[in-house]
Amino acid sequence: MPMIQVSVLGSTGYGGIELVRLLTSHPKVKIYKLMSHSYAGKSLSDVYPNFIAHEDICLSELDIDDIADNSQLVFTSLPHGASSKIIPLLYEKGVRIVDLSGDFRYISAKIFEKWYGYKHPRPELLQESTYGLPELHKEDIKKAQLVGNPGCYPTSAILTLAPLIANQLIDPTSIIIDAKSGATGAGRATSVGLNFCEVDGNIKAYNVSTHRHTSEIEQELGLLAGRDIKLSFTPHLLPIKRGILSTIYASLLKSLSFNDIYTLYTKFYKDAPFVSLYLEGKLPEIKYVRGSNQCHIGFALDSRTNRIILVSAIDNLVKGAGGQAIQNMNIMFGLDETMGLPQLGWYL
Amino acid sequence: MPMIQVSVLGSTGYGGIELVRLLTSHPKVKIYKLMSHSYAGKSLSDVYPNFIAHEDICLSELDIDDIADNSQLVFTSLPHGASSKIIPLLYEKGVRIVDLSGDFRYISAKIFEKWYGYKHPRPELLQESTYGLPELHKEDIKKAQLVGNPGCYPTSAILTLAPLIANQLIDPTSIIIDAKSGATGAGRATSVGLNFCEVDGNIKAYNVSTHRHTSEIEQELGLLAGRDIKLSFTPHLLPIKRGILSTIYASLLKSLSFNDIYTLYTKFYKDAPFVSLYLEGKLPEIKYVRGSNQCHIGFALDSRTNRIILVSAIDNLVKGAGGQAIQNMNIMFGLDETMGLPQLGWYL
Amino acid sequence: MPMIQVSVLGSTGYGGIELVRLLTSHPKVKIYKLMSHSYAGKSLSDVYPNFIAHEDICLSELDIDDIADNSQLVFTSLPHGASSKIIPLLYEKGVRIVDLSGDFRYISAKIFEKWYGYKHPRPELLQESTYGLPELHKEDIKKAQLVGNPGCYPTSAILTLAPLIANQLIDPTSIIIDAKSGATGAGRATSVGLNFCEVDGNIKAYNVSTHRHTSEIEQELGLLAGRDIKLSFTPHLLPIKRGILSTIYASLLKSLSFNDIYTLYTKFYKDAPFVSLYLEGKLPEIKYVRGSNQCHIGFALDSRTNRIILVSAIDNLVKGAGGQAIQNMNIMFGLDETMGLPQLGWYL
Amino acid sequence: MPMIQVSVLGSTGYGGIELVRLLTSHPKVKIYKLMSHSYAGKSLSDVYPNFIAHEDICLSELDIDDIADNSQLVFTSLPHGASSKIIPLLYEKGVRIVDLSGDFRYISAKIFEKWYGYKHPRPELLQESTYGLPELHKEDIKKAQLVGNPGCYPTSAILTLAPLIANQLIDPTSIIIDAKSGATGAGRATSVGLNFCEVDGNIKAYNVSTHRHTSEIEQELGLLAGRDIKLSFTPHLLPIKRGILSTIYASLLKSLSFNDIYTLYTKFYKDAPFVSLYLEGKLPEIKYVRGSNQCHIGFALDSRTNRIILVSAIDNLVKGAGGQAIQNMNIMFGLDETMGLPQLGWYL
Repeated sequence: MPMIQVSVLGSTGYGGIELVRLLTSHPKVKIYKLMSHSYAGKSLSDVYPNFIAHEDICLSELDIDDIADNSQLVFTSLPHGASSKIIPLLYEKGVRIVDLSGDFRYISAKIFEKWYGYKHPRPELLQESTYGLPELHKEDIKKAQLVGNPGCYPTSAILTLAPLIANQLIDPTSIIIDAKSGATGAGRATSVGLNFCEVDGNIKAYNVSTHRHTSEIEQELGLLAGRDIKLSFTPHLLPIKRGILSTIYASLLKSLSFNDIYTLYTKFYKDAPFVSLYLEGKLPEIKYVRGSNQCHIGFALDSRTNRIILVSAIDNLVKGAGGQAIQNMNIMFGLDETMGLPQLGWYL
Repeated sequence: MPMIQVSVLGSTGYGGIELVRLLTSHPKVKIYKLMSHSYAGKSLSDVYPNFIAHEDICLSELDIDDIADNSQLVFTSLPHGASSKIIPLLYEKGVRIVDLSGDFRYISAKIFEKWYGYKHPRPELLQESTYGLPELHKEDIKKAQLVGNPGCYPTSAILTLAPLIANQLIDPTSIIIDAKSGATGAGRATSVGLNFCEVDGNIKAYNVSTHRHTSEIEQELGLLAGRDIKLSFTPHLLPIKRGILSTIYASLLKSLSFNDIYTLYTKFYKDAPFVSLYLEGKLPEIKYVRGSNQCHIGFALDSRTNRIILVSAIDNLVKGAGGQAIQNMNIMFGLDETMGLPQLGWYL
Repeated sequence: MPMIQVSVLGSTGYGGIELVRLLTSHPKVKIYKLMSHSYAGKSLSDVYPNFIAHEDICLSELDIDDIADNSQLVFTSLPHGASSKIIPLLYEKGVRIVDLSGDFRYISAKIFEKWYGYKHPRPELLQESTYGLPELHKEDIKKAQLVGNPGCYPTSAILTLAPLIANQLIDPTSIIIDAKSGATGAGRATSVGLNFCEVDGNIKAYNVSTHRHTSEIEQELGLLAGRDIKLSFTPHLLPIKRGILSTIYASLLKSLSFNDIYTLYTKFYKDAPFVSLYLEGKLPEIKYVRGSNQCHIGFALDSRTNRIILVSAIDNLVKGAGGQAIQNMNIMFGLDETMGLPQLGWYL
Repeated sequence: MPMIQVSVLGSTGYGGIELVRLLTSHPKVKIYKLMSHSYAGKSLSDVYPNFIAHEDICLSELDIDDIADNSQLVFTSLPHGASSKIIPLLYEKGVRIVDLSGDFRYISAKIFEKWYGYKHPRPELLQESTYGLPELHKEDIKKAQLVGNPGCYPTSAILTLAPLIANQLIDPTSIIIDAKSGATGAGRATSVGLNFCEVDGNIKAYNVSTHRHTSEIEQELGLLAGRDIKLSFTPHLLPIKRGILSTIYASLLKSLSFNDIYTLYTKFYKDAPFVSLYLEGKLPEIKYVRGSNQCHIGFALDSRTNRIILVSAIDNLVKGAGGQAIQNMNIMFGLDETMGLPQLGWYL
C-alpha cells in the first residue's frame, strides 16, 4: 500500500507538535507540509530543537490549493473559530480532514453556539462531519470526509461512562465528572496564569459548571442514552505537563457486582484496542498512560452510598488529541487502527 | 503573661517538624523537649539542616515523667495506634495534650474501630477528648485537657460544608468530596509509591470510598445536621508537597442566590479569623494558602443541575495539622487565637 | 521607637510581592503605599489572593511628591532602566531608597554600560549609592541614602567566595561559578520560555559567559582582592520556583585543611547572622534555606585536583532580593539586622 | 534475518524497565525472559501497569542454564557487585552480555577497586570486556562477547569532551564537569532522600569529588589523550525524572573560532547517528532529548577567560542506559545501529 500524504495546519502548538512527532514514526505516512502561521519559513528544529536530527523539515504558510492538491488528509490543529473558517475551503476541494478544534464536533449548531458564544459560520457542515471517537463511531469514521476529533476531557469522560449509559445502569442526573488535566491542555499560549511559577506546586479548578466540554460529553452520552443528559463537569489544572485523570461519580440504578460491570465493559470494548480495564482493587494513574494512545479505566463500588466511582486516565496530547487523530486517519484509510500509535505508556 | 512550656512527641515526621517550625516563632511558647524515637540524641539540625542556626535544639527519647512535670502542653505527632498507647500515661498525670493522630477524634469507639480496623485501647477517653476544630468547638476546646486535632482532609471538608449543613440547605445524601492533597500528607515514610519518580508528573486516586477520614467528616457533619450522614469522599495524591484542594458537590434543597449563601457563610464564620470567603467568580487555589493557617472557601452555583460546587484550599501541614494544633493551644491557654500563626500564604 | 513608614514601587512583580509579604510581618514597619503600574486602583488581593485577609491594601499609581513626603524609605522593585529614571527624583527629595534593580549596584558607569548595553542616565549617582551586601558593607549602608540591593546570583557567589579572596587563598583566574536558579528569578513576565510546560522537567543553561551578574560579582571580589578579577559564571534555569544553588570551583594557592578554612569562614562571618557554615561532609541544599534570609555555605576539598568546591544556597526572593532589602533597611534605621526576617527555611 | 532472542536480568528497576519498554518496540528482538528477584512470579503489569495491554509478560527467577540456552543476548541491569557475581556464569556458557552496571567498564582492576571500594571478583574478565560507548569503540563492540555499558554521566561527559581531548585542544587539568541528573538515576530504591517531598523544589550536589563516574570519565579521556587525566566532576540531583545536563568548562590551548570547533565535532561524529551539534548561540536542554537516544552538544567560547563552556544533554535512561545497551546490541548483531531506537525527544 502506498504512503498517505498528509499536511498539518497549526503544527507548532502543543497539540500540533505532538501530532507531528507521532506522524514522523508512522510507517504509512509521508508528511507533505507543516504549516505554522507564527513560524512560517523557519526550520521546525528552530522552534522545537528536539527535531534537530530532522533538520530538513520546514514550516510553511498556508496555501489552500497546494495542500489540497497534494494531501490525502489534512489535520487542522487550530483554535476553534479559526478552524471553521479554513476547513470549508479544504472541504470543498474534496480533501479529507481531521479537525482537532471544537468546531466540527457538534450535531446541533444551537448547542455549539450556546457553549462557544458565537454563531457557527457553516452550520450545514455539522451534518457532514463525524464525531471522531472511534470506540463509538468507527463505521461513520471510515467513510467520513470531515472528522471532528474529540476534546481531551470528553474522550476520557465518554469512554469511561459509555458502557454504563448505554446499558442504563446509572442515573444520568447523578453524574459528576471531576477531571484533572496537565498544562499542555491549555496550549502554548503565554499568559501569567500558565507561568511555571503560577502552576508549579498548585492545583486549581476553573470554568466550574461552564466549561465547553460539558456540552460535548452531554451530546455523546445523550445519544447513547436516547435522552437529554445534564451533568456536572469540573476541570482542574494540574502541575504536570501531560495527562488527564477523571474521577467520575454516579448512582447505580440496580445492584451490580464488580464482575458484572467488569464483564459489561469487556464486552463493550472488545474491539477497542486502546481501552484497558483494571481488575478489582486497582485504579489507573496518569503515569501508566502518559505517552500512549491508551485509555485506562478502573472503578470501585461503594455500597454505603450506592455509587460507582470510576477513574480513567489518558494522555491528553495522544488519546486526547494527536494520537486519536491518527487513529481516525488509520480508520479512514483502512489501515490497522493501531498503526504507528504507542500502546505502552512511559511510566517514567 | 509567662511563656507556655511545651513538648513535642514525634517531632521529626513532616507533621511534627512543621509544628516545631511554627512553634519556634510563637511569641508565647518555650519548647521544653522535642522527642524523636528515630533520632534521639541527635541535634535537630542533623536531621533538618534548615535548623542550622538553632544548633542548640536536641532530640530526646521519651521520658513520660520528665515531660509531664515540665510541660504545660504536649503535642503528640505520632502514628495512630502509637498515640493511644502513650497519651493515657500523660493524661493521667494531668498534662494537657493536643494529639495530631486519629486516635482521639471520635465520639464513638465503634465507628473508630470500624474505620481503623482495631480496638481502641482506651475507649473511655474518647468521652474526655474534644474534637479540635476551633471554628465549631471553641468553647469545648478552651477547657479541654485532651484535644484530638482534626485530620487534614476533614478540616477542609467540614469547614466548607458546615454552614450549608447547619442550615439544612443541601441534601446530605448528595455530598461528594473530591479532594486532592500534596505528598506531605503521607508523612516521611519510605515506600516506592512515595518516591519522587513515582509521584512527579502523576496524580492518583487512592482508598476510594474507604478512606478513614470519611468517618471523621461524617461524624462532624452529622452532629451539625442532627442526623446520620453518609457521603462519598475520594482522596487523590498530587505531585506537590503541601496543600489540599477539595472540590465538593451537593444538591441544593432550595433556590438560593450567590449572595444568600455568601451572607450565610460570612455570618457563620464571623468569629473565625482563619476562614476567608471568595467573591463570585473567584475560587481558591493552593498557592493562596500554602504556608498559612487559612482555609479559603469559594463556590459556584449551577442552575442546570441544581448543584452547588464548592472549592476550598488549606495547607495540610498548617491548618490541616500543626497550625491548627497551635490554634487549639492558643484557645486552651486563653491567648489570641491567631497568635504566632501565619495569616498570609506564600503564593511563590 | 516609632514605626518606619515605607512605600514600594513595583510591588506586584515576584520580587515586589515577596518584599511586601515580608514587610507585612515586620514589627517596625508601616506600609504607606504600594505602587503598581499594571494594577493601580485594584486591591492587592485581586492580584494576589493570598492577601485576601488584608483586603484593605490597595495598589496606587506613582505620585513622587506624595510618597517622598510620607515615606522614610522607598523600595524600588522595577526593571533596570526604569529604576534609574525614577530614583533620581526621589533621591533629590531626600528620601532614603533601597533599589532592587541593577541600576545602582556599580561603581563604574563604564562597566555598567558594557554589561547592560546602554548609557547610565545618572552616572554621578553611582558615587552616592552603596552596594547593599551587609556582610561586606555594613558601615556604609548605615549612613547610605541610596542602596543598590545586590543581585540574587551575586549575593550567593560573593558571600561564598569572599573569605577566600580576602585572604588570597585561591587563584582568582581559576574561579568558575555554576549557578542554578528557580524560575521566580525571571520575574512575572510572560514568555513562552517561562511557561510551565517549557520549564517543568527541564534544566537549561542561559546567557553563558555573558550574564550581567558576572560583572557585579567581579566588582565585589575585585574590591576584596585589590585587583581586577575575571571569572566564569554560568546561570541555569531550574524547574523550581525559589532558590539558588551555586557550585563554585577554585584552585587553592596553598595547602589547607577543612578546619583551616572552616575557621577562616567562621571568623570572617562572626557578625553575620544570616550566614551559616556546614561541617565537613555536609552541603547546603535549596530546601534548607527556602523561605529564609539565610545563606548556607559548605565546601569540600579535592586533593587530587587541588581544588576547593564550594556549594551555597539562598532563597533568591529573600536573601537574594526582598529579605536582603529589609536587612538593609534594618541597618539603615539602626534596628537589629535580623528584625522581621525569617531565619528558618521551610524545608517542605 | 531472524529475531534476536534476549533476556533481561533486573528488569524491574528503573533502568531495567526502560530497557524492556524500548525492547518491546524493537523490530528484531524477541524477549525470552524477564527476570526480577523481587517480583518473580508476577505479571509485569502488576508491577508496571503501563504494560496492562501486554498482560502475558511474566517475571521469572534467574535460571542460568535456561537463559543461556535460550538467549543470544542477556542484558544485566543489576547493582554493581551483583553483576560481577552472575556474569561470569553466563560468560562461561558463551552467551553474549551487555552489562549496565559498573562492574565491567574498567580496564584496570586497581582503579575499579579504588573507586568502588571492594576487590573485583573476576579481574581477568576486565580484559575480555569492552567499554560500550559506540561512538568511540564500535569496532570492538562488534565482536565483543561482554560489553560494559557506560554510566549515564560518563556517556554525557565523554561524548562532549572527546573531540577536544583527541585533538589536544584543551588543557586536561582544567576540566570541570558540573552535571545535573534526574532522579531516575538513583534507581527505584526507597530512601528518605528520594521521597517526592525531599526532591521536589530542591537541587543538591552529592558525592562531590568522590563520585565513581569520575574514574570512568578519566579512563576514557585518558585513552584519547594518551596520558593520565584528573578532572573535577560534580553530580547534582534535579527535581525531574529523566535527563542529564552537563555543563563543562575547559581552558583552550590555542585560539579557535566557533566554526573551527564546530567543524571538528562534525568530522569527529560523522558516523555517529545519535550525536547532534548545536549552531552558535544555541544550547541543548533536557526536554529536547528526553525519551530519545540522542546526545545533544552545544558550546560557547569565552574570550575573556579563554575558556570553552560546553553543554550537553542526554536522557539518562536511554542514551545513558537502556537505549545505549540496545545500540550496542544492534552493533553486536550487525543491525543498523539506530534500529528500534527513538531519535526524537518528547519535548513535552
